[in-house]
Amino acid sequence: MLVVMKPQASEDDIRAVCEKIQVLGYRPHVMPGAERTAVGITGNHGPLDPAEFETLPNVAEAIRVSKPYKLVSREIKAENSVIRVGSGACEVTIGGKKLAIIAGPCAIESREQAFAAAERVRRAGARLFRGGAFKPRTSPYSFQGLGEEGLKILAEVRERFGLAIVTETIDSETCELVEEYADVLQVGARNMQNFSLLKRVGRSKKPVLLKRGMSATLEEFLMAAEYILSEGNYNVILCERGSRTFADHTRNTLDLSVIPGAKDLSHLPIIADPSHGTGRRDKVTPLARAAVAVGADGLIVEVHPHPDRALSDGFQSLYPEQFEELMAEVRAIAGVVGRTVPYGPEASEPATSSSDPAPSRRTAQPAP
Amino acid sequence: MLVVMKPQASEDDIRAVCEKIQVLGYRPHVMPGAERTAVGITGNHGPLDPAEFETLPNVAEAIRVSKPYKLVSREIKAENSVIRVGSGACEVTIGGKKLAIIAGPCAIESREQAFAAAERVRRAGARLFRGGAFKPRTSPYSFQGLGEEGLKILAEVRERFGLAIVTETIDSETCELVEEYADVLQVGARNMQNFSLLKRVGRSKKPVLLKRGMSATLEEFLMAAEYILSEGNYNVILCERGSRTFADHTRNTLDLSVIPGAKDLSHLPIIADPSHGTGRRDKVTPLARAAVAVGADGLIVEVHPHPDRALSDGFQSLYPEQFEELMAEVRAIAGVVGRTVPYGPEASEPATSSSDPAPSRRTAQPAP
Amino acid sequence: MLVVMKPQASEDDIRAVCEKIQVLGYRPHVMPGAERTAVGITGNHGPLDPAEFETLPNVAEAIRVSKPYKLVSREIKAENSVIRVGSGACEVTIGGKKLAIIAGPCAIESREQAFAAAERVRRAGARLFRGGAFKPRTSPYSFQGLGEEGLKILAEVRERFGLAIVTETIDSETCELVEEYADVLQVGARNMQNFSLLKRVGRSKKPVLLKRGMSATLEEFLMAAEYILSEGNYNVILCERGSRTFADHTRNTLDLSVIPGAKDLSHLPIIADPSHGTGRRDKVTPLARAAVAVGADGLIVEVHPHPDRALSDGFQSLYPEQFEELMAEVRAIAGVVGRTVPYGPEASEPATSSSDPAPSRRTAQPAP
Amino acid sequence: MLVVMKPQASEDDIRAVCEKIQVLGYRPHVMPGAERTAVGITGNHGPLDPAEFETLPNVAEAIRVSKPYKLVSREIKAENSVIRVGSGACEVTIGGKKLAIIAGPCAIESREQAFAAAERVRRAGARLFRGGAFKPRTSPYSFQGLGEEGLKILAEVRERFGLAIVTETIDSETCELVEEYADVLQVGARNMQNFSLLKRVGRSKKPVLLKRGMSATLEEFLMAAEYILSEGNYNVILCERGSRTFADHTRNTLDLSVIPGAKDLSHLPIIADPSHGTGRRDKVTPLARAAVAVGADGLIVEVHPHPDRALSDGFQSLYPEQFEELMAEVRAIAGVVGRTVPYGPEASEPATSSSDPAPSRRTAQPAP
Repeated sequence: MLVVMKPQASEDDIRAVCEKIQVLGYRPHVMPGAERTAVGITGNHGPLDPAEFETLPNVAEAIRVSKPYKLVSREIKAENSVIRVGSGACEVTIGGKKLAIIAGPCAIESREQAFAAAERVRRAGARLFRGGAFKPRTSPYSFQGLGEEGLKILAEVRERFGLAIVTETIDSETCELVEEYADVLQVGARNMQNFSLLKRVGRSKKPVLLKRGMSATLEEFLMAAEYILSEGNYNVILCERGSRTFADHTRNTLDLSVIPGAKDLSHLPIIADPSHGTGRRDKVTPLARAAVAVGADGLIVEVHPHPDRALSDGFQSLYPEQFEELMAEVRAIAGVVGRTVPYGPEASEPATSSSDPAPSRRTAQPAP
Repeated sequence: MLVVMKPQASEDDIRAVCEKIQVLGYRPHVMPGAERTAVGITGNHGPLDPAEFETLPNVAEAIRVSKPYKLVSREIKAENSVIRVGSGACEVTIGGKKLAIIAGPCAIESREQAFAAAERVRRAGARLFRGGAFKPRTSPYSFQGLGEEGLKILAEVRERFGLAIVTETIDSETCELVEEYADVLQVGARNMQNFSLLKRVGRSKKPVLLKRGMSATLEEFLMAAEYILSEGNYNVILCERGSRTFADHTRNTLDLSVIPGAKDLSHLPIIADPSHGTGRRDKVTPLARAAVAVGADGLIVEVHPHPDRALSDGFQSLYPEQFEELMAEVRAIAGVVGRTVPYGPEASEPATSSSDPAPSRRTAQPAP
Repeated sequence: MLVVMKPQASEDDIRAVCEKIQVLGYRPHVMPGAERTAVGITGNHGPLDPAEFETLPNVAEAIRVSKPYKLVSREIKAENSVIRVGSGACEVTIGGKKLAIIAGPCAIESREQAFAAAERVRRAGARLFRGGAFKPRTSPYSFQGLGEEGLKILAEVRERFGLAIVTETIDSETCELVEEYADVLQVGARNMQNFSLLKRVGRSKKPVLLKRGMSATLEEFLMAAEYILSEGNYNVILCERGSRTFADHTRNTLDLSVIPGAKDLSHLPIIADPSHGTGRRDKVTPLARAAVAVGADGLIVEVHPHPDRALSDGFQSLYPEQFEELMAEVRAIAGVVGRTVPYGPEASEPATSSSDPAPSRRTAQPAP
Repeated sequence: MLVVMKPQASEDDIRAVCEKIQVLGYRPHVMPGAERTAVGITGNHGPLDPAEFETLPNVAEAIRVSKPYKLVSREIKAENSVIRVGSGACEVTIGGKKLAIIAGPCAIESREQAFAAAERVRRAGARLFRGGAFKPRTSPYSFQGLGEEGLKILAEVRERFGLAIVTETIDSETCELVEEYADVLQVGARNMQNFSLLKRVGRSKKPVLLKRGMSATLEEFLMAAEYILSEGNYNVILCERGSRTFADHTRNTLDLSVIPGAKDLSHLPIIADPSHGTGRRDKVTPLARAAVAVGADGLIVEVHPHPDRALSDGFQSLYPEQFEELMAEVRAIAGVVGRTVPYGPEASEPATSSSDPAPSRRTAQPAP
């Protein structure tokens, strides 16, 4: 059930609706919109009577929500959600006109490696840094990440390079630790239906980057996000990272149609991961261009100062110079789809994008 | 690395090998075999020198293991593992000549429902009872299980009906509680790569039923089991429960070839779940017959006293009478592939299997 | 539209219905049943009026058919179709109590190879021989079959060994040639939606073995069969041969649930191909057992006298001794699911199936 | 085997190589390149001796080709193939700097419908017209196309609107008829491994548009093209049209990574079909943008004057105004990836693309 308030509804009117919901034993979710506020109801095990709410002051209507998801739905919130990430000098938004570019190594291996990566991705225009301290690995014998030591390095990266930190949380036990250091909590594809973890990050104050599972339908993906919102954390960024199919020319099949698909149904921002989505370094940049062209709100890209020496996923990590090229190409595409990449070498000049001379010689060349 | 002892090796010889491994900073895993014992080594981040071990007393050889999995591999243990489950009157084995039949409702809904199901599945020949107290559900608004109350009902079922209890653990937080009541800890398909949970159940004393993820390769499946064994719990039962494909006549595509496939590579037992594997009541029995014919070590089947009133998965739960038919058909197939279903109405007659007309030398032998 | 006749309807009554249909510009399909005859109507581009037919003598009712397929549907014919294949000494049926076992090499390579294979598969109990003369190959540079020379060898095999011949037709140009020599025309998975070829074999007098496409849904599979029936050839045998999925432990994923699935919806017989379905020799026999257990009407198996020297698919072809084992195991399973394999070494003894110890009333019944 | 000539090799030198190949009983394929010519050899059933050719005048080297495909490979021809399509006023190229835009209805239904579609797509900038006269349909009872009548309408469209014609050929029987009228022969996804048809179009003088099969690997796709080239027709345009996966938010999953993937391995041009690739009208334009961004050489798009009244695929056909928007968005993307769309409303102004005013207000807006 969704209770839609009239535009003139006051704070008190909204509070009255919430109290009524709580009295009935359910949970209210206030979703402010540009023009008017809606209040979602969760916790009911059967249909509710709209009349219960429509008689309250300044309630426009009470709508039965037909989709299995509610809080993530555009039915409850028509405008795009813009998620605020980081704070102070590192604050960026995800979901608005500016593309969010998250870059960095698969795993944090050392301070030197992290700093080298951070310096290069910042200079190229990224304002969010990725890097795993707790790594979910297929083999128990593979490098599992530096743990808290890695988190501390990430905090130094933020301090020194002005980059907001995106890092993975793999279980409730270590989630609190990750929350201390991270600006965005990443939930990996293998944990997309780890409902306990979803509930845990749903109780966090930090935004969550939720990756689509390897064989998750769009509905399951949105339901996973719903778990997080239903616990009270509305700051969720979706991420397409490739599905498992029979195709063998890439490690996964990046499903770009899910990006406009998710945007149709949900107000949440959605970004793409062309690194895991292809699993091959030489395919990352073309698919990054395509993701921005299809309407993604941003990218998450693996960049390593020395991919050949990486402890994990080296074959899909870009060299720093390749990331610079990617940024130049993505910036060009962004310019024609109504987006901007406001940082980096080209943007740093007179950032008055009106004079934007556009397609410079550095811009994208199609594959030969 | 795998250190294979000579047949005449004593306990002391084995202990010496373990100590050497520990001194080097690694972890020994003693795997006793019918003829000789092997000691697996985990924790090393690079190749070891076989000479370090081959010079110890009564070591036959030290073998570099080429596969990414070690402890689950037939290279380390050639004979089938037979897992002992439950205790006292409820003790059964999984992986031997007797088929393990696990049956019961998707979720425990009430004492009445559980008892009604237990009474019927026991009478039909099941000796293991399934039922979820903690349910991983796609929607946060769906019934999530009765929690500890459900576990208590399961304990009563064991007491009253002499059935060993299989129930799911969904996170580390509640794992200890589940361990208290369960005889077998189930890890669901969605958690197959929840590595924190795998490590947690790897430290449990209770056997683990590990379901294959919806799009997991056989290697990933075995690596997930390896996580559990690498923590010291060697009592793992694999379970095929259907993969996600384009096909739409069933909810999942039950991949029966993975059963002989897993047996080729691993000593662990593997059973099939035709309920989730098809998602349709009318397909459960034919696929149960096929699973036994292909060589499965057992079945896990959803049975509900009133499927039409079930709180979850009712459309794939069998009516008790259908389960009786399934058992009769499975018993017939078992008889010709060298297996037995030693309980239930037909078995209760002269259970002296000597009069058993079947398993001629020419008939089917399960994969070794 | 389906016109169902009353049980007492005479030939003339049926003829009157057909004439009426033709007068309206459509096509009648007479489908005799055990108790009464139905006449299917195809060729209409919109709904017909039942009253047009229900007023004719001895018409019970005229039913609008809701499914996209009509002639293959159980709605039009409730009993299983039993297809008569071959003639004289080579006549066999597919779809009844007796399992149809089709065996032989992937491709006919020489008279010696074909005879050696035929001798062994006949002795083991097969009564149908497979072997390609026209081979659809992924590469234009691979062996494409012996063409007519291969067909002549197949005719000799029939003559000499009393085996009905199943061989593939790959295009309309050579279909007539294949028809001359073959007892059953095989349409391969890659041609399942080659609608021109389907129509061509639909005009043939020979039965058709139709393989499921690598990513065909059940509905598409039945619609492909419908193409054949709609041209007047009602003798179609379906064949599951594995789907393409992400799984890499077998070449394809054999989808055994499609066997009861097809039987629910269609009266046509369906067999399984565990050779292509797994692509690995060591998995053929376990999956053959499973296919019979699930209710398949038969098997098609690749057997080569010298698989290591085969010009195609050698790695999935059985050695003759392995095929003998397969037959022994399949015979045992058949016995408990109400089927028989009436030929071969064990069957040749007192073939008085009365002494047959098996099919008790409780044992497996094939899907109706 | 690939015989690479020296840059200074004369026509006579090349002829001498070809004669030598023919004398040996094989088939030569002359592949002229920008700098030097290579001669492919097919028809050999085993390895050849390089020395046989390296001793001929002006042969640089004879290389054993390791990939299963030869003629389609970049090993044999490093530069992109640019395919010349149509003639006279209708001549266009596919594979060069200019994007090839193919648009029109799924099926030709009438002269009025075809003309209405042609007028609009021409005006928007398309120079190739698509429309089926022979339609492969899942159901034998669905509209199968107008046949030759449809082809005649297509010829009128070419005459009247100056559009080159792309239309499907579904079998060898009608291929000659289609060749008479078409400028490009389309081979549909369901026929990608109809090898008889591939050979037939391989003997045609007309270029071929080859669609990727629904579950074809990249290697199988290239091998299907190899069939066409091996018969002497080197004018093949590849087309990605979506794969079959578990995902249900689109009809197929458009695999854009196959575009750079094919370009890595092959010199053939490759375009994308976002209409079949998504199966949903509202996803066609975003995926068209993405396809151009990833590097596609063109697009094939379904446009119908009245999609709601279409006899086939209406739900995925664009309205003419939607196609105009698509063209404006695609033109903007093309501009930043080094491509042009030289026709249509915006291009028709001062076509001196230097002054290209670029992203007009009509250009792409990301999905809300």
